[in-house]
Amino acid sequence: MMSIKAIISGIVERKAEKGGITHVYYVACGGSYAAFYPAKAFLEKEATKVTVGLYNSGEFINNPPVALGDNAVVVVASHKGNTPETIKAAELAQSRGVPVIGLTWVTDSPLVAHCDFVETYSFGDGKDIAEEKTLKGLITAVEILNQTEGYAHYEDFQDGLSKINRIVYRAWDHLQNRAQAFAQEYKDDKVIYTMASGAGYGAAYLQSICIFMEMQWIHSACIHSGEFFHGPFEITDANTPFFFQFSEGSTRAVDERALNFLKKYGRRIEVVDAKELGLSTIKPTVIDYFNHSLFNNVYPVYNRALAEIRQHPLTTRRYMWKVEY
Amino acid sequence: MMSIKAIISGIVERKAEKGGITHVYYVACGGSYAAFYPAKAFLEKEATKVTVGLYNSGEFINNPPVALGDNAVVVVASHKGNTPETIKAAELAQSRGVPVIGLTWVTDSPLVAHCDFVETYSFGDGKDIAEEKTLKGLITAVEILNQTEGYAHYEDFQDGLSKINRIVYRAWDHLQNRAQAFAQEYKDDKVIYTMASGAGYGAAYLQSICIFMEMQWIHSACIHSGEFFHGPFEITDANTPFFFQFSEGSTRAVDERALNFLKKYGRRIEVVDAKELGLSTIKPTVIDYFNHSLFNNVYPVYNRALAEIRQHPLTTRRYMWKVEY
Repeated sequence: MMSIKAIISGIVERKAEKGGITHVYYVACGGSYAAFYPAKAFLEKEATKVTVGLYNSGEFINNPPVALGDNAVVVVASHKGNTPETIKAAELAQSRGVPVIGLTWVTDSPLVAHCDFVETYSFGDGKDIAEEKTLKGLITAVEILNQTEGYAHYEDFQDGLSKINRIVYRAWDHLQNRAQAFAQEYKDDKVIYTMASGAGYGAAYLQSICIFMEMQWIHSACIHSGEFFHGPFEITDANTPFFFQFSEGSTRAVDERALNFLKKYGRRIEVVDAKELGLSTIKPTVIDYFNHSLFNNVYPVYNRALAEIRQHPLTTRRYMWKVEY
Repeated sequence: MMSIKAIISGIVERKAEKGGITHVYYVACGGSYAAFYPAKAFLEKEATKVTVGLYNSGEFINNPPVALGDNAVVVVASHKGNTPETIKAAELAQSRGVPVIGLTWVTDSPLVAHCDFVETYSFGDGKDIAEEKTLKGLITAVEILNQTEGYAHYEDFQDGLSKINRIVYRAWDHLQNRAQAFAQEYKDDKVIYTMASGAGYGAAYLQSICIFMEMQWIHSACIHSGEFFHGPFEITDANTPFFFQFSEGSTRAVDERALNFLKKYGRRIEVVDAKELGLSTIKPTVIDYFNHSLFNNVYPVYNRALAEIRQHPLTTRRYMWKVEY
């Protein structure tokens, strides 16, 4: 299989005569959409010429951007490669001559038939975090930036990749007891909020929509720590539960302000702190982009404990894959 | 006062030698952040050279994009001009030589001191919808596109501006009775979701965080109609209330799919339908961008009825402007 670096270099070369890559679109649904959040945040922050867009596939196929053409690249993701909207998004991109990179777990899917390049990822027990969907998505962004405009912290990023796996598995062990206490405390709650900021926001979004709502049928919303004081904080009281992602990097101060308020006026706050969990061994230049992978991989410790104590297995669904929609 | 058209043309002229405007950043918090959603959606869809970003001010000041420099324009908004993060965002932009356009209601505020251009807007009873904050924000986007790349539907957009005020006030009258019935039905609910897609999504976000959460202390989340089937729909049951924004334009099909599901498996769905409310007299080329203004201005009909029946005035706060945060 070609490396992502080689895939991007092929595309860059092919597009050179026509003005290169100027638009990168990440297109997916639900958990895969969330997994692209760091890639989007990375290019939005670091690029000066390349424009990035993150789209829900349904939105994308019904309302594609005018710039979806000669200078665009589309990156899609679907775990089983069978999400109808995402398949259509890949088709649409190809119909406009836009190269499509597909991240997927299943390599003989309808999605794969509409991708120019297919990249699988590590998944399941014992997976290598640096080879997961989220980081593969991020690597496409880093390679595109580095091979077009150049990226000063490319080596720091590689160094981060080499460290993230160990950080995650240590955090996993570290949180086992806390997750049991969390499950005991929150097992009867009807609403649990998640909170986050920065490039790791997508992990809190995923926890909110794919775990609390989808897999546990608990009401939830993902509140941006910076938006908290401009509306949402009024629902704070001694009973309302918040699952708080305390990130390391640029937006830690944004989180800290919200957390200080919650500690004063709320009572039921579960904090996962990237600093405590050792993320800081990754360099400050690139640490922002690894928050997602850390948080996204420690939530399962909590989720398994919660599902068990609630006797509501994470695989239980009432509609998904069961009824027509 | 200079028109927005003239403000933009001055900036375009001033930047011509240095490569023109390539990056536009909309920066605000809460309701003002939501008001910028159509401007962001417009440039994201229509522009091929200009890059747009929509930022919460706290996120922006802690993690500003590398492209915040010679070719950037920043548009901020704060109703009273006293939001600390937004003031700092304007300061930061100016310190990098970036022109700042400020949308505000109060013209002698700390924010105004850090804006190169100040634009007020229509607000309160009897306001002109075409002169509101949301549409003033959108006009900055339309002018920037038209004066840089050109915008084929510029005249259609002006036509839409001339029609929106009448559409909104007719819808207002049309919904009075329905709003009373809504208030009666939902007065005791602890959770109410909003749903939306497309350029009008910001209105549903605002309703969720600034009204249900902030002003009524009701738990809420704003669910994207296209994301619904990828997690959130599992919380659907006969009791869960959804306030559904059925938009006109490109993403109506996305909404329709979610609404069909809700009608089958849910029971308590309040639908505001832009088609029924007459938005379709605006041309299809630009109709997407007027959904926000319609929805954002019919919610208050419901909100007043709800606040009255719950005896929870929309002005009640426990933390905002009352405690330190």
